[in-house]
Amino acid sequence: MATFKTVKGFRDFYPEDCAIRNFIFDTWRSVARRYGFVEYEGPALESTDLFRKKSGDEITGQLFCFEDKAKRELSMRPEVTPSLARMATARQRDYKKPLKWFQIGSCFRYEEPQEGRTREFIQFNADILGDASPAADAELIALSIDVARAFGLKKEDFIIRLSNRQIWTTFLADRNIAEEHTSTFLQIIDKIERTKPEDTATKLEAIGLSYGDVRAFMDTTDDSHPAFAELKAALEARGLWSFIKIDASIVRGLAYYTGTVFEVFDLQHDLRAVAGGGRYDKLCALMTDGSVDMPAAGFAMGDVVLGLLLKKTPGAQFKLTEALLAASSIDAYIVVADEAQRGNALATLQALRDAGHRVDTSFGQTKVGKQFQAAEERKARLAIVFGSEYPQVVVKNLIARSQVEVPAADLIGHIQATLATAPHGILLA
Amino acid sequence: MATFKTVKGFRDFYPEDCAIRNFIFDTWRSVARRYGFVEYEGPALESTDLFRKKSGDEITGQLFCFEDKAKRELSMRPEVTPSLARMATARQRDYKKPLKWFQIGSCFRYEEPQEGRTREFIQFNADILGDASPAADAELIALSIDVARAFGLKKEDFIIRLSNRQIWTTFLADRNIAEEHTSTFLQIIDKIERTKPEDTATKLEAIGLSYGDVRAFMDTTDDSHPAFAELKAALEARGLWSFIKIDASIVRGLAYYTGTVFEVFDLQHDLRAVAGGGRYDKLCALMTDGSVDMPAAGFAMGDVVLGLLLKKTPGAQFKLTEALLAASSIDAYIVVADEAQRGNALATLQALRDAGHRVDTSFGQTKVGKQFQAAEERKARLAIVFGSEYPQVVVKNLIARSQVEVPAADLIGHIQATLATAPHGILLA
Repeated sequence: MATFKTVKGFRDFYPEDCAIRNFIFDTWRSVARRYGFVEYEGPALESTDLFRKKSGDEITGQLFCFEDKAKRELSMRPEVTPSLARMATARQRDYKKPLKWFQIGSCFRYEEPQEGRTREFIQFNADILGDASPAADAELIALSIDVARAFGLKKEDFIIRLSNRQIWTTFLADRNIAEEHTSTFLQIIDKIERTKPEDTATKLEAIGLSYGDVRAFMDTTDDSHPAFAELKAALEARGLWSFIKIDASIVRGLAYYTGTVFEVFDLQHDLRAVAGGGRYDKLCALMTDGSVDMPAAGFAMGDVVLGLLLKKTPGAQFKLTEALLAASSIDAYIVVADEAQRGNALATLQALRDAGHRVDTSFGQTKVGKQFQAAEERKARLAIVFGSEYPQVVVKNLIARSQVEVPAADLIGHIQATLATAPHGILLA
Repeated sequence: MATFKTVKGFRDFYPEDCAIRNFIFDTWRSVARRYGFVEYEGPALESTDLFRKKSGDEITGQLFCFEDKAKRELSMRPEVTPSLARMATARQRDYKKPLKWFQIGSCFRYEEPQEGRTREFIQFNADILGDASPAADAELIALSIDVARAFGLKKEDFIIRLSNRQIWTTFLADRNIAEEHTSTFLQIIDKIERTKPEDTATKLEAIGLSYGDVRAFMDTTDDSHPAFAELKAALEARGLWSFIKIDASIVRGLAYYTGTVFEVFDLQHDLRAVAGGGRYDKLCALMTDGSVDMPAAGFAMGDVVLGLLLKKTPGAQFKLTEALLAASSIDAYIVVADEAQRGNALATLQALRDAGHRVDTSFGQTKVGKQFQAAEERKARLAIVFGSEYPQVVVKNLIARSQVEVPAADLIGHIQATLATAPHGILLA
């Protein structure tokens, strides 16, 4: 029995978990690069004030925050956007606009763990800074769709729920509701699908609105609303508009959004949102006390809900299996059947690894049967047997179940040719 | 001027820094996989007791440690080995021995930042658990050499300084020095090259030894010592022994090593050790209060000293330049010369990205000259120009400085063929 436990809400990634994690990272990275995004990363620890500035004092209740030995108030980051704003505004003159930046890294929130929520999770963040156009919003939404598709998710698996906070701003202005009520109102809308209509009605009446009016506006708002015109044109041209559902109830909880807001929702399993984001044109100015004003939009996708969804979705499961195999399988296992040949075996091991192949062997005298067992467990394509017949070496193809004797002098060339032509992986056996 | 600063000792990875970081990660990962290692990861935060158990109470002076809101004593990990021991011992029955596990992730130490030392740094850890043989030590040393070579470091750039704590254990036993002095003695040896001989002599005399005897033993200990015999045979067979220098002054600061110890040292720039490790057969038993006894050995390589070394080493600089280019360059930039063609341009953008190419475009009406400038800045290989001559599309090869008109219907096929054959990257222009 182990003495120590994993801290509550934190995760151990054993090799089989890490392979899935890496598959998720690789997919995020490769799709973002296709879109011309470049990767950045901020520190795991920031001054607590950075997060207070963006989200208010209440945020500290959800932070892993502490004083360091020099009495600095520090926090493990709960999200990356404040660091992005800090970094991008500090050096905005060094980069051509728009910045198309993405990031992959751990975030930490002191919240009660439950399904789909851990205290340490990994986010993919993609943001465009320095461009205020709906075309930039369309680029981000298209990226979120293509990331989902790259994981093997199909049209029946997910949808983008899209709205724009401006439609509500206009709605309120048309009804002469004072601007001071905007934030309260958006919070009501944010919770409207999870709140009893009569409770919502009471809250709306307090700021001079009727439930019937709000509900009717929500139900009739569709993609004919002018707030969506440019976005729709840009996504239609890409053939992606069919992934979109206009949903005026989407406002996103965070106070800082100013325009387009969207969420990637799964359609089959009633999970939390897989990703969410939108336009936040005022954040850079806020974080720099007005000295750098830079429009911005972005979204984040966490690994926890995504991981749950992938495990439940047939189109993604195959990719997970492939990823596991790719992470753990080797090209060849060198079997030392005659200990006197270990030196020759090690020289071959080194030569094959130098050539870029994944090769393993035993560390000392081991029964031949056990060595073959190890080769099978590692899903090696070839077993290369060094026995008393040396300088003849037996090369067994563990997928084709065939074998051939090769003179030691020709061995490296023979193996390289075999590995170059044979299919990779036991799945194809 | 930005309001917020990066926390002392922490780093921002702007895109050009992140590209280098990713090159380092990719190199670590690919060489470890060649060696048949599989990747794992532990949490960034562990209970402070985990680190106390391994290193004693003094360790907390170097930790970012704090109490969370539920009064748990937690620490950001200063190293990964305690987590590895926790994880591997908890599930050792689920895996075939030996475990060959590697990890890449951030560690945090509250130390004074200086050249080659930051408070957040990234380590590559490779460990073999469940095998006590010198062959396993040889595998780790070979991996450290091949990792260094994969970065472009050559024989003139680095050396492995190798020792074995057992040679000192034997030395002390031969001289009837009580075992209780071993730890003090090893600390003296660890500092011997940085301490005045007379001070070392005083300390040695206090435990019954003479400086002359110790120095003579150090100076005459070479690879003929029986402690190195098996290791030498295994590394000679791989052609790697010439990278090794026996150096009995290497004991490694950490108390937990029990046998082989080694460091990767640069030969040109007098930097700190690039990597270090060794055998620590008693750690698993210590961490589990004796319930899991598993031999182990491993090494860690940090990104900070390594990064300094790579930037100073000609053989590595070229690889860094390549990595920067690979991370930031795109395959094609779509120039919209006639706004009426934006829809067709976006459809092509999507089709090329779907095919896996890296393609970018402007977000709205932009002068054609500026769009070509953006294409050059992104080091695009092709510029694809949608103008009034549509459905004829101009494809400019920005490397060959040639151009061709292609009918829209043939465009995707033409571009894919061009990208498949043309050399990647502006370097080869």
